[in-house]
Amino acid sequence: MDQFFYSTQIYDDFIILPKDEALHALKVLRKKPGDMITVVDGKGGLYETCIESENIQSCRLNILSADKEFGHQNYYIHIGIAPPKSHDRVEWFVEKAVEIGVQEISFILADHSERKHIKLDRIEKRAVSSMKQSLQAFLPIINDIVPLKDVIKICSNDEKFIGYLNEGNNNHLIKSATPNKDYCMLIGPEGDFSSSEINKSQDFGFKPVSLGDNRLRTETAGLAACHILNLLNEKQ
Amino acid sequence: MDQFFYSTQIYDDFIILPKDEALHALKVLRKKPGDMITVVDGKGGLYETCIESENIQSCRLNILSADKEFGHQNYYIHIGIAPPKSHDRVEWFVEKAVEIGVQEISFILADHSERKHIKLDRIEKRAVSSMKQSLQAFLPIINDIVPLKDVIKICSNDEKFIGYLNEGNNNHLIKSATPNKDYCMLIGPEGDFSSSEINKSQDFGFKPVSLGDNRLRTETAGLAACHILNLLNEKQ
Repeated sequence: MDQFFYSTQIYDDFIILPKDEALHALKVLRKKPGDMITVVDGKGGLYETCIESENIQSCRLNILSADKEFGHQNYYIHIGIAPPKSHDRVEWFVEKAVEIGVQEISFILADHSERKHIKLDRIEKRAVSSMKQSLQAFLPIINDIVPLKDVIKICSNDEKFIGYLNEGNNNHLIKSATPNKDYCMLIGPEGDFSSSEINKSQDFGFKPVSLGDNRLRTETAGLAACHILNLLNEKQ
Repeated sequence: MDQFFYSTQIYDDFIILPKDEALHALKVLRKKPGDMITVVDGKGGLYETCIESENIQSCRLNILSADKEFGHQNYYIHIGIAPPKSHDRVEWFVEKAVEIGVQEISFILADHSERKHIKLDRIEKRAVSSMKQSLQAFLPIINDIVPLKDVIKICSNDEKFIGYLNEGNNNHLIKSATPNKDYCMLIGPEGDFSSSEINKSQDFGFKPVSLGDNRLRTETAGLAACHILNLLNEKQ
């Protein structure tokens, strides 16, 4: 079990592998009918399967065993982040957050945002590849860019945090969050959140937190928040 | 104090700004004689200065005040890491480790290393830029690639750790390290450390530790280790 494949076409006793995954299995790795491969569904399900057909357009796998709660966890991490100007840094953030562990990512449009659009298809591909690479079965929900004011209204997570740079903001996230909860953490753009955004988010129950002493880039702050919340919850 | 410049030519009461920094200050930001800029020396020193000359080849700054222990800390993080195959990922690791905080990086050549050379000049430039970006005064020592066996012999840090993937290796770094120490943490290549490397490092006092449940890429593991050691030491 050192390589995962991804499919969303999961039936009772068989799976259809999408064309790009089938190409990888049959052409790159030269798997043959009868060989076993491990498939994840992006929703926490893991399937041990046996290749039945060599048809790349519709490669059928027989399910040998299924674990629908592979990697089940008692917490939920939702990161709301203003995408950095460089799209490479956006994609990098998604890759790394998925490796470290994240359940939902919402891209936000803030007062000082420099980037107003994201390439969601590229981001989703990067997330799938990172899920497989890090041997996970869960693909985060990735929400396209929405105004911050809408995110803070809709967000119903148990514990809500907003990170920003201010000498008075000294509550470290690792001390502010409690284990086994649903979290939402907001990370601002390079020019930081505006003071009206900070006030508004507090009206909706977002608690100001710090991520440490150094000034971090947006994508680094997003990843640091993910890592802190995972560390808080890991069985150690 | 929202922008730092870097120079190593620090004298008693003046500083010479190197050409690329002088170009940035005088041409891009259009600073003039009499304007104040903040300079760091990469060794923990921070200087408030006033621009004296507009000469880009030798831009002289008068020192108004100096803090030679800016950001002084009671711990030391040394990451020994096998560089990933992609040099972009090597540089990314350095940028992010500097942002999060690291005092020394040694690139190591391990049995399963795919990359045997690094571009040290590019890495050093990236480190300088990340130090300035994250408003720090300390530039890590960056050691060119050396065989793992030499690193484990030379390494004299108080607490020494080796990370690898093994179901029996369940001691989480955050529980294994103690605050206010000098640490060295070894991170292996994509194919992991060989068992003889793991045994050898333990002979030299390196303790096996885990960084969590997910399988992380080399550069992500290196950054996670840095972040964990900083979190352990941060005044919270």
